Amino acid sequence: MKALVYGGPGEKYWTDVPDPVVEDPRDAIIKVDTVTICGTDLHILAGHVPSVEPGRVLGHEAVGTVVEVGTGVSGPRPGDRVLASCISACGTCRYCRHGTYGQCLNGGGWILGHRINGVQAQYARIPFADLSTHKLSPDIPDEAAVLLADILPTSYEVGVLNGQVRPGDTVAVVGVGPIGLAAILGARLYSPSHIVAIDKADSRLQAAKQLGADVVVQPDSDPLEVVRALTGGLGADVVLEAVGTPETFELCTRLVRPGGRVANVGVHGRPATLHLEDLWIRNVTITTGLVDTYSTPTLLRMLGEGQLDVSRLVTHRFGPDDVLEAYDVFAKPAQSGALKVVVSLN
Amino acid sequence: MKALVYGGPGEKYWTDVPDPVVEDPRDAIIKVDTVTICGTDLHILAGHVPSVEPGRVLGHEAVGTVVEVGTGVSGPRPGDRVLASCISACGTCRYCRHGTYGQCLNGGGWILGHRINGVQAQYARIPFADLSTHKLSPDIPDEAAVLLADILPTSYEVGVLNGQVRPGDTVAVVGVGPIGLAAILGARLYSPSHIVAIDKADSRLQAAKQLGADVVVQPDSDPLEVVRALTGGLGADVVLEAVGTPETFELCTRLVRPGGRVANVGVHGRPATLHLEDLWIRNVTITTGLVDTYSTPTLLRMLGEGQLDVSRLVTHRFGPDDVLEAYDVFAKPAQSGALKVVVSLN
Amino acid sequence: MKALVYGGPGEKYWTDVPDPVVEDPRDAIIKVDTVTICGTDLHILAGHVPSVEPGRVLGHEAVGTVVEVGTGVSGPRPGDRVLASCISACGTCRYCRHGTYGQCLNGGGWILGHRINGVQAQYARIPFADLSTHKLSPDIPDEAAVLLADILPTSYEVGVLNGQVRPGDTVAVVGVGPIGLAAILGARLYSPSHIVAIDKADSRLQAAKQLGADVVVQPDSDPLEVVRALTGGLGADVVLEAVGTPETFELCTRLVRPGGRVANVGVHGRPATLHLEDLWIRNVTITTGLVDTYSTPTLLRMLGEGQLDVSRLVTHRFGPDDVLEAYDVFAKPAQSGALKVVVSLN
Amino acid sequence: MKALVYGGPGEKYWTDVPDPVVEDPRDAIIKVDTVTICGTDLHILAGHVPSVEPGRVLGHEAVGTVVEVGTGVSGPRPGDRVLASCISACGTCRYCRHGTYGQCLNGGGWILGHRINGVQAQYARIPFADLSTHKLSPDIPDEAAVLLADILPTSYEVGVLNGQVRPGDTVAVVGVGPIGLAAILGARLYSPSHIVAIDKADSRLQAAKQLGADVVVQPDSDPLEVVRALTGGLGADVVLEAVGTPETFELCTRLVRPGGRVANVGVHGRPATLHLEDLWIRNVTITTGLVDTYSTPTLLRMLGEGQLDVSRLVTHRFGPDDVLEAYDVFAKPAQSGALKVVVSLN
Repeated sequence: MKALVYGGPGEKYWTDVPDPVVEDPRDAIIKVDTVTICGTDLHILAGHVPSVEPGRVLGHEAVGTVVEVGTGVSGPRPGDRVLASCISACGTCRYCRHGTYGQCLNGGGWILGHRINGVQAQYARIPFADLSTHKLSPDIPDEAAVLLADILPTSYEVGVLNGQVRPGDTVAVVGVGPIGLAAILGARLYSPSHIVAIDKADSRLQAAKQLGADVVVQPDSDPLEVVRALTGGLGADVVLEAVGTPETFELCTRLVRPGGRVANVGVHGRPATLHLEDLWIRNVTITTGLVDTYSTPTLLRMLGEGQLDVSRLVTHRFGPDDVLEAYDVFAKPAQSGALKVVVSLN
Repeated sequence: MKALVYGGPGEKYWTDVPDPVVEDPRDAIIKVDTVTICGTDLHILAGHVPSVEPGRVLGHEAVGTVVEVGTGVSGPRPGDRVLASCISACGTCRYCRHGTYGQCLNGGGWILGHRINGVQAQYARIPFADLSTHKLSPDIPDEAAVLLADILPTSYEVGVLNGQVRPGDTVAVVGVGPIGLAAILGARLYSPSHIVAIDKADSRLQAAKQLGADVVVQPDSDPLEVVRALTGGLGADVVLEAVGTPETFELCTRLVRPGGRVANVGVHGRPATLHLEDLWIRNVTITTGLVDTYSTPTLLRMLGEGQLDVSRLVTHRFGPDDVLEAYDVFAKPAQSGALKVVVSLN
Repeated sequence: MKALVYGGPGEKYWTDVPDPVVEDPRDAIIKVDTVTICGTDLHILAGHVPSVEPGRVLGHEAVGTVVEVGTGVSGPRPGDRVLASCISACGTCRYCRHGTYGQCLNGGGWILGHRINGVQAQYARIPFADLSTHKLSPDIPDEAAVLLADILPTSYEVGVLNGQVRPGDTVAVVGVGPIGLAAILGARLYSPSHIVAIDKADSRLQAAKQLGADVVVQPDSDPLEVVRALTGGLGADVVLEAVGTPETFELCTRLVRPGGRVANVGVHGRPATLHLEDLWIRNVTITTGLVDTYSTPTLLRMLGEGQLDVSRLVTHRFGPDDVLEAYDVFAKPAQSGALKVVVSLN
Repeated sequence: MKALVYGGPGEKYWTDVPDPVVEDPRDAIIKVDTVTICGTDLHILAGHVPSVEPGRVLGHEAVGTVVEVGTGVSGPRPGDRVLASCISACGTCRYCRHGTYGQCLNGGGWILGHRINGVQAQYARIPFADLSTHKLSPDIPDEAAVLLADILPTSYEVGVLNGQVRPGDTVAVVGVGPIGLAAILGARLYSPSHIVAIDKADSRLQAAKQLGADVVVQPDSDPLEVVRALTGGLGADVVLEAVGTPETFELCTRLVRPGGRVANVGVHGRPATLHLEDLWIRNVTITTGLVDTYSTPTLLRMLGEGQLDVSRLVTHRFGPDDVLEAYDVFAKPAQSGALKVVVSLN
């Protein structure tokens, strides 16, 4: 089959590799119909994730059709159209028993396109298929469903739910690339009074407005003052970090009000400075997290009910021969205006 | 009256000052019976808290007897023996309505011995007396009650409750000076399986053992390995920071397991490094906080029921002529072995 | 002044009574601008609330202008336009310290128009004015604000928040009179997938649709089957009881799914049958409650932001000479179509 | 093999039946070492549980040794000594994903000795073995471990955790048979100030005292007055129902303070009267539930750490030839003084 293979820092190929096979009774094999690309895939290609070895098939977000299941799989059946979640979960370890699937102790967690071959391929092996796939109803289009493999549950669980957004809150979202925009979609479900989007790129701020931010501001236009003006000088109830740099994280800790919450969603490569000399007295809660995907069934239900308009997040669509071009477009959002790009493999 | 007056960095006097008077209808005046000294008082004397001006009477922990109340005070009556809490609370602002008294927006919060004259004096003015004093039953001795002015609720709310200690948990306490020791007392109420005390001073580790830590370890004896051995390699469920240095805070973030909680209790003067490059993926919750004293009524009830043996925390007792000596002893715990020192002013 | 006075079962008068005066330093006197009538007022008039004695001025929902405050009042000032909450709160008792104002132990709770004279009068005494009044911004009209005296916080706290409505839930509201309709408004803030309104009156079901219910059903059209069809046979995640009869309560316990929540909002005069022989195994949570009004500041903020369209709840408006007619209209909703009626007293 | 077989109301036999076999890839077969008898087994024998058909092997609490596992089982291995939980869990349905295993939608829940053959036999089939068995460390004796199959997690989850026992609380336990006594053990982990045990049998009240109740009272000695005297007239913070009759349930709703919680643990065969005419205004939370056993891993850890002294709950021990006698003793506690009886089958 064809697959997108990591060749070491800066190298990737759309090339022939052996078809995947059932290796464990809990595996399923899916024919991949639709995939998308994650910012993490770009990090891997840049060589920033040393646990990914050359030769690995990339990708952890897919919609596909089950073609085979192991003897220990009881849920998905061949022919089922399923969402393959970015997180694999054994379901029985201490973490999985509490729905903290991302921290699975038995070989699950984020493994697709990372520690094992991923889903940017014509076929893929999905471990622990009972918990890691979700059957799709026919009325949900592929390109909506595939956004629930990672970006929607990540922004919802690690951002909105960890941040405990509540009706009437003022929420600041620092960074409104795809993940920050998805967080705006999710935050709106809790009816905050204000969503303040902060980003350098004017095009992203425009997208943020369309998705539900009522205030947009660039970092050099004093977002602290903007937030204070909205909140009687107190600061934001909830601040979501959706960039992954020390500077943006530190901005978050300045934007939050005493008693407020900073939910870190960004993937960080460097340490940040935590100004405890100011924060120790301010009753602040800071959370981090890899997505667990415990919210995926609920998000799928809301998607089916028309409560999540994810279509605005998809800016580019590609066919099976254009995987490499899809990467080019996604990697250069400043030129392409890309948010999420979707590739149909059939 | 006599009072302990701050004279600028390094200077303090036990000297005559005017008696306090009712300035607001919600004030009470108390005759101070018993006080204790806080680590924060030492910070003020060292000049680290610029909001404290020379001439200020220090102290925010007292047991006293009400001698006068303003017309707007409905609870305490002259003659009542009361605990004066370290936190004053208007009771009506946005924060006070949620019990977040430490962040009071109407002139409350930590003001005693900070923004207004404090309680290390023969008499003291207690603002917002209805919420900020607690009537004491006769069977509670002064030296037990005075520990509920600050150190017990601080370690309980900001440490144990923010950290969400639960039965069966492994709790690591980094720093077992008075506040860390009080946190051990509070943590035991939730029946953790293990309390690991970490401190440089052997004498404090011995005190920790007596108060309920089952494992004690010095920082240079690889506490990370000790905690991992207890927890199947995972790390502590809850880590309490009770020192206030960048190094101890960073140790806490290494000790905590994925999905665990770091509750910062220490008062920090410098920023710490937050290793988000490791922590972003680990589902960690970090909390900070000034005490709100919402737990004081419950702690008082438990003290009356004999559930909180705070007597071990008091190592030295002084009379009304020995306030300055009490400071000397408290300021040099390495020589004196002091934990909390109590001064009777009558 | 003129006031609406209870004269014993079935008797009420709009008559002259002495003006109220400050009786406690924490009192405020307001000139009443706008009031509304509560179903509880009808219960009192029917003689169902024996704690209300003849001669009592009725009413616990008002917008007014402060004309005088006691010496212990620090917030509201003469001239301030305020909302007078249905709940009075001392702010210092065990319950008030946790925001459970409705259970105040020091003479607060629901006292207006119940244990002391109420607000359906030209002037009213508001005890504990610091906590029990809320300053109104000029852009909030009286007839919107007055709905936040009781019906909005009651339906939100006792219904929506006790019921823990969450995004994606199916919520059933049994009874869509004014309080049930207000609960629909509040529930929508949490983005449930479905709100099922159940009521005998077609006109109320139509109002429910306009306010956000997506499914409406009469009790004799098998609401259990309707809810099951929406929920894969499981039942509703949250059921709100907003009638106050044994039959409707029992219906609620049949509608709820295993693991779901029944939040009772209705005022009951008779016991209900609790089918523990079915429910013991179903992980059901049932809550009751008098409103505490802890949510009023948040609701006021959302009202100011345009997030709560309460105007649809007001069907009839009356002037100062028509208080008795307002009662007639409100008491006969089947004929009048009345939801909430508002009376301007100036 | 030998097994205890239900023969219809009033009939049971210790007789020969075919050995169990793996029927599903997720099954395990265990050789049963130790069992105990549940009050539910007596209900079944009395014919109160019509879903149990004659011919069914009874029992849902066992410690055993794995002898065979299906191809889809990844955790337990032949030779492992395991606890077989009373609840079987598919791990993948909507309920199991949230740890609500008792409500499993895929054929799990309470099925052992109920819908399928149980464990009071020399061998037993355990469905969904990965989630439904727990490997035991050698230092935990059988007769302690077997109490974690049902009675300990039931009293802890459905009683202590649903009731949200907190430090300083007053907890009333209505009924101190085995399940109520186990609830006392669990409640103590949260350091309530008072545990009030209420029961008709003096012997059980004595056992309650030994396990940690500080106040014991018989129902006809005015427990309401006893609880009020302890709580300043308010009532208990938490009340646990551990009998299962309308009368005891109604007593619970009288004992609870405004704002308190009633957690029903008892198995009910008849409806109770819910006095909503009193309770609607009192902010009461009532919970019911079948155990989910999500707490079993934590309880096992605490048992291993010596934090749960369950040995006092076992009053009688029997050998493999005395299963019927064990039933007789357990069924007549008034004569035998039996709490839990344990049967060794090897």
